[in-house]
Amino acid sequence: MITNRGRADSPVRRQNPVRFYNAPNTRKDKHVRVVPLGGLEEVGRNMMYLEYYEPGSSYHGDIIIIDMGLQFPEDNMPGIDYIIPNVASLIPKRHKIKGVIITHAHYDHIGGIPHLMPRLGRNIPLFGTDLTLAIIKKRQDDNSPGAPLNLKEVDNKSKIKLGPFQLEFYGISHNIPASVGVIVTTPVGIIVHTGDFKLDLKSDIAGKTDIEKIKTLGKRNVLLLMSDSTNAREAGSQFSEKDITVEIETIVKDAKGRLIFGTFASLLGRLNEIIQLAEKHKKKVVIEGYSMKTNIEIAVRLGYMKFNKKTIIPVQEAPNYPPHKVIILATGAQGEDNAVLMRIVDKRHKYLRIQPSDTVVFSSSVIPGNERSVQHLTDKLYRDGAEVINYKMLDIHAGGHAKQEDLKLMINLTRPRYLMPIEGNHAFLKIHGKIAKQTGMKDNQLIFADNGQVVEAYKTEVKLTKERVPANYVMVDGLGVGDMQEVVLRDRQALAEDGIFVVIAAVDSTTGKVKGSPDIISRGFIYLRESKQLLYEARQLTLKIIEETTANMHPVNWEYVKDTLKERLGQYLFTKTEKRPMVLSVMIEV
Amino acid sequence: MITNRGRADSPVRRQNPVRFYNAPNTRKDKHVRVVPLGGLEEVGRNMMYLEYYEPGSSYHGDIIIIDMGLQFPEDNMPGIDYIIPNVASLIPKRHKIKGVIITHAHYDHIGGIPHLMPRLGRNIPLFGTDLTLAIIKKRQDDNSPGAPLNLKEVDNKSKIKLGPFQLEFYGISHNIPASVGVIVTTPVGIIVHTGDFKLDLKSDIAGKTDIEKIKTLGKRNVLLLMSDSTNAREAGSQFSEKDITVEIETIVKDAKGRLIFGTFASLLGRLNEIIQLAEKHKKKVVIEGYSMKTNIEIAVRLGYMKFNKKTIIPVQEAPNYPPHKVIILATGAQGEDNAVLMRIVDKRHKYLRIQPSDTVVFSSSVIPGNERSVQHLTDKLYRDGAEVINYKMLDIHAGGHAKQEDLKLMINLTRPRYLMPIEGNHAFLKIHGKIAKQTGMKDNQLIFADNGQVVEAYKTEVKLTKERVPANYVMVDGLGVGDMQEVVLRDRQALAEDGIFVVIAAVDSTTGKVKGSPDIISRGFIYLRESKQLLYEARQLTLKIIEETTANMHPVNWEYVKDTLKERLGQYLFTKTEKRPMVLSVMIEV
Repeated sequence: MITNRGRADSPVRRQNPVRFYNAPNTRKDKHVRVVPLGGLEEVGRNMMYLEYYEPGSSYHGDIIIIDMGLQFPEDNMPGIDYIIPNVASLIPKRHKIKGVIITHAHYDHIGGIPHLMPRLGRNIPLFGTDLTLAIIKKRQDDNSPGAPLNLKEVDNKSKIKLGPFQLEFYGISHNIPASVGVIVTTPVGIIVHTGDFKLDLKSDIAGKTDIEKIKTLGKRNVLLLMSDSTNAREAGSQFSEKDITVEIETIVKDAKGRLIFGTFASLLGRLNEIIQLAEKHKKKVVIEGYSMKTNIEIAVRLGYMKFNKKTIIPVQEAPNYPPHKVIILATGAQGEDNAVLMRIVDKRHKYLRIQPSDTVVFSSSVIPGNERSVQHLTDKLYRDGAEVINYKMLDIHAGGHAKQEDLKLMINLTRPRYLMPIEGNHAFLKIHGKIAKQTGMKDNQLIFADNGQVVEAYKTEVKLTKERVPANYVMVDGLGVGDMQEVVLRDRQALAEDGIFVVIAAVDSTTGKVKGSPDIISRGFIYLRESKQLLYEARQLTLKIIEETTANMHPVNWEYVKDTLKERLGQYLFTKTEKRPMVLSVMIEV
Repeated sequence: MITNRGRADSPVRRQNPVRFYNAPNTRKDKHVRVVPLGGLEEVGRNMMYLEYYEPGSSYHGDIIIIDMGLQFPEDNMPGIDYIIPNVASLIPKRHKIKGVIITHAHYDHIGGIPHLMPRLGRNIPLFGTDLTLAIIKKRQDDNSPGAPLNLKEVDNKSKIKLGPFQLEFYGISHNIPASVGVIVTTPVGIIVHTGDFKLDLKSDIAGKTDIEKIKTLGKRNVLLLMSDSTNAREAGSQFSEKDITVEIETIVKDAKGRLIFGTFASLLGRLNEIIQLAEKHKKKVVIEGYSMKTNIEIAVRLGYMKFNKKTIIPVQEAPNYPPHKVIILATGAQGEDNAVLMRIVDKRHKYLRIQPSDTVVFSSSVIPGNERSVQHLTDKLYRDGAEVINYKMLDIHAGGHAKQEDLKLMINLTRPRYLMPIEGNHAFLKIHGKIAKQTGMKDNQLIFADNGQVVEAYKTEVKLTKERVPANYVMVDGLGVGDMQEVVLRDRQALAEDGIFVVIAAVDSTTGKVKGSPDIISRGFIYLRESKQLLYEARQLTLKIIEETTANMHPVNWEYVKDTLKERLGQYLFTKTEKRPMVLSVMIEV
């Protein structure tokens, strides 16, 4: 049995109703406004800002931003490239923004930068570790050459003062090196933002967890911990990269033919492990995919990856080696149409074809929306005779995020007075809250905010307010960015469903008589060549409706005629086809 | 990190290239042509036919059909209701169709009946068990009243002769009662079609496995086994319904408030178990959803479900009982927009709202394409304070299909000379083949066919041929059915991506001069109100292009003008917006 897939709701309805309360801050005590702009109702589009409130103080109104990510669009957003946070609430205050802190170089944390920094001010300093900044810079140079950002490198020893906020960083494991958590000392207390994290005490190949520094937080009286909920649904502890290396080694060692890893360009920890293992087992590695190549180049340059240069060979040289000596790292673990793996399988790749002795290893965790593409990719691989291994450890999320036991450990180490789960769907945040209660935290210590919902952090209390700033989706579509996309998107959804039907009539502006026969153009509705009768009847109906509505009307109200035409033609078409195309009418007065 | 979802391929490209070989049957020996029309490259749309070949015999050309299912559309098929098999190869031979056998009453086995039976001949006898036929009849009466089918009831003791084919049936467990496997004795040997199955020897609540009859097949020299591959990727053995009942009982017993099961209307075995458990624990059951109600009524009428009538209460009476005494069975396990569960959560249901003490139990196995809808549903449930249990056993596929050990057991019991894996994506079929090799079968005993690919079964050999009959998707869209939908679908995909841009100019047919200013209508492209400059420039460009192209052209070739306009306007719009709307131009000659 199979069942119908739910019609995805409109993105507008899906989000919470946006109510803008410009509630006065009745309490006069100084506090920090914590304003999440994204990442609290989804995985992606992570961005928040902290705003200091102390009228009379020279710091009053000072702002820092943490992360500036993007989110990839949902099924019901045809043609949309991606979604970025809404910064409308920051625009009037942009002169107060003291800096932007980026926790690590994944798109859901850096992807909004090229769009948002020009709006907020390109000179605002942007802080990150060396690798994070190098990846941001590369992306900026590729996409907006000549528009440099004001990049400021930090490391785990840095201490930075931005208005009332003092910043420190601690190293953390994720699946890209040089990831950090952020410690913000504010006049009301310490706020910790974990970024994406796991607590890997056995390996630092994908970022070193600075466990000693995290432990010291337990003695520093942390007011608020904002902690990653991506894997809050998973019981137990996350794997160490060391365990993962052992598993990948089995695959590398046992491969009887070529080994093709379909993976992610930004999964630098995992890519590093595979290259190390190739070297150990005397195999050669081909790297395919522009972003993967550039990311690896950057990581090598900064010392985050170290290997013998001879291990990497150009794709053209692969046939010179026995198949079992060749490993190919390719983008496309999610069945993306233009990634390397799909181009190989579809025989569109210039050099590579699947061979029956190949083993293809790719992620078994598929990002929602990609399942069918991945299944079709898998089917094609089996059709070509390849062996396929679905390996969860190659997933972008598997292995990189704290699971339930890790989340508890983070709480127990930092001992915050309040916990605000971040980075995940609402369900994940709530589950994170349940986990926290197992450590002894009480309901009144847990803050579950929505995107745009303002949280106020006082010395004695952190509280969720009813104030909301705009945090709806801002869609990027070609060169267009903005809220106004929503009406366009609704039209696209309607067009996609049943197409468009346009009737065009040349009318005498004085008599209202139609000249000649109305023209009809239609796309995406029905197959016109087989619908001559329907088109004929629609033309006749158009003539009749125009004649009837204009009969005793002087002067002719053409808007009324057009509306009547749309409505009655729409009804006619539905009766005949059970479809509701978008009906438009154009009257050309001649 | 998140990554872009792959652009889904065109459904046309996704399928294998259709090559029609009308290869002569070079071998003159009598044989059975096994022709799968669907279900071998997907989960769904199950249908095949067997055609007897023996020139000179009175049976030559006789045909039986097994199953007639539908498939729900993929992401890239906007507006399509569902997909049915292509019966083009059967149309010229429809007078030779002796009967249609339906293995069980799930949509992927019965859904094509209302569309295909009228094309093939409504009088062709349609065989199924009592429950299967009752559900088919109900659906036919609801959708096509006054168009009865020629239904013929069978049971596990039936023996039917249809031309050269002798049919027997054996009972099998699935997750709907009265499911059968089909034993077809042909002049060349026995062909077994398992339908959907699991081998449940501990319970017959969801269909009784007639293991003794299956065992006898081992001695009957089965030529070809066609066996369900849906769960071929799963190691181990499938759960017994008995184990599943034990697990569900814990949930029913422990619920402190109302218990809401989001499930499937056709999952009659599981629904039966829940109602039995409610009765045992003295709870009342509300059944919500038209199809669920009617299916349960049919099952009760035919004796497949037995319970005290007082256990079921109308939804309006639920508030009269303490919450922990109430169980609600609701459709909507997959986040479908109009199913009961979504209507409750969205506060669109007339009587039911989520309460913080509710426990909502639904399937953790989400059908590809539904993941986001289900996640949004889950988020809303958490937001309303409900407890959510994701329970794999409530899935429509979990629990109903043979896993790897069961598949081996089926092969070992029936001992076929050839195995043809059916019902699943190509990858599943290949994995099923690997499993078969673990029982000792050889590569040359395994048949991996594509949809439409003809398999020939001779007394001594079963072989895959290169002959292919049409088996492409036939899309049902409102009242339209047919191949011609593909061009319409491509237009919808294009419209969905970047919208439409229509320019309309009234021109003097003799001079070629444009009268007045061209009209522009556009939808789904950009927000017109904010694009006045672009529209102005597009109008000017239109005037310029028409003037240039018509300047020295006598008479004016308006097709050429229109094509030039489309191309150059398209280029202009792309330069300005990086979008490629569908550009159409209409010249009204006045």
